[in-house]
Amino acid sequence: MFMTMSLDGYVGGPDQGEEYPLGVGGVELLEWWAPLRVFREMHGEEGGEVDASTPVVEEILATLGATIMGRNMFGPVRGPWPDESWRGWWGENPPYHHPVFVLTHHARGPLEMEGGTAFHFVTDGIESALTQAKEAAGGRDVWLGGGASVVNQYLAAGLVDEIDMAIAPLILGSGSRLFEGLEARTPRLKQIRAVDAPGVTHIKYEVG
Amino acid sequence: MFMTMSLDGYVGGPDQGEEYPLGVGGVELLEWWAPLRVFREMHGEEGGEVDASTPVVEEILATLGATIMGRNMFGPVRGPWPDESWRGWWGENPPYHHPVFVLTHHARGPLEMEGGTAFHFVTDGIESALTQAKEAAGGRDVWLGGGASVVNQYLAAGLVDEIDMAIAPLILGSGSRLFEGLEARTPRLKQIRAVDAPGVTHIKYEVG
Repeated sequence: MFMTMSLDGYVGGPDQGEEYPLGVGGVELLEWWAPLRVFREMHGEEGGEVDASTPVVEEILATLGATIMGRNMFGPVRGPWPDESWRGWWGENPPYHHPVFVLTHHARGPLEMEGGTAFHFVTDGIESALTQAKEAAGGRDVWLGGGASVVNQYLAAGLVDEIDMAIAPLILGSGSRLFEGLEARTPRLKQIRAVDAPGVTHIKYEVG
Repeated sequence: MFMTMSLDGYVGGPDQGEEYPLGVGGVELLEWWAPLRVFREMHGEEGGEVDASTPVVEEILATLGATIMGRNMFGPVRGPWPDESWRGWWGENPPYHHPVFVLTHHARGPLEMEGGTAFHFVTDGIESALTQAKEAAGGRDVWLGGGASVVNQYLAAGLVDEIDMAIAPLILGSGSRLFEGLEARTPRLKQIRAVDAPGVTHIKYEVG
């Protein structure tokens, strides 16, 4: 799990949808991240900055072999897919460059994109998505990317091994709340390290 | 403002009261702090540890001249004071060693304790408590100590200058939630520094 959270616990603003992929105000969660060279490279762009966040992100990205995400992280379409026209927020060459498993209640065939990304739509639950993602990753790590609803389900089910939180200096006030619906000490956390970076603090936890 | 918060946003567990001054499970918020020599000294005890949290805490304590807290941080008594017998959680020599302003709806005369602590009960609201605390502090800083309800009121009113959060590797799941009832970007935060310490991350924000 690797996500950016506001200090008040939100990973997206309210009214998430086509106009606001990260909810209203949620784009500020990316202020530490979007200017970095490593972010721009993932998105096929040149230039960008290098700062104390760079090695943190590079360490995470270096081991990834697959991603799991919720349907709203893939797009704004709700309910049954009307057609195949929505192909993700990212254009034809998404920044993942590996298989991505999208949790949804509505079946859809896989989407082969450019640059190594393929979207697979999983309708039989979080455990199935994890099994498929692990198999696709072939021994590399599976990134649990978001949003809050999917991540909270994985946390409650005890299926998360490692949590890398980027804590943004931001109060969102409302939106998608992470760590909701959990029992006390579920999961149990051990702090591994914290990194002070420009405009963000990275804290890594091992789940024990 | 200087408080310890669980990763899921709580500064105390549920069912706070005489049996559980920090709510059920809330004592785990102090696991980084209670073993430190600087904590033990405040409480008139010997020994204790020195670690990366020590300079963070010492820097905060060095400038304090008064404290503001909510009534539940002072004690478990609810409603009108039945008598003067409750004198705080801490015995006759509390760890503050300066004037403490306790917000309550129920008037009570001041309490002079040993070691420089005096409790003053303020019934005319958060702005009055701040004015009195600033005057008592005589140019030194006022510590907004907690709990969540009082701190959230000060945050919403724009009366907090600096936030020093200790983020504990802990999921509480329920209890007293910090940063609730706020509007987006109220307050606006600028991250000043983060410190990786054993069992906790300290993040300091300037309110701008």
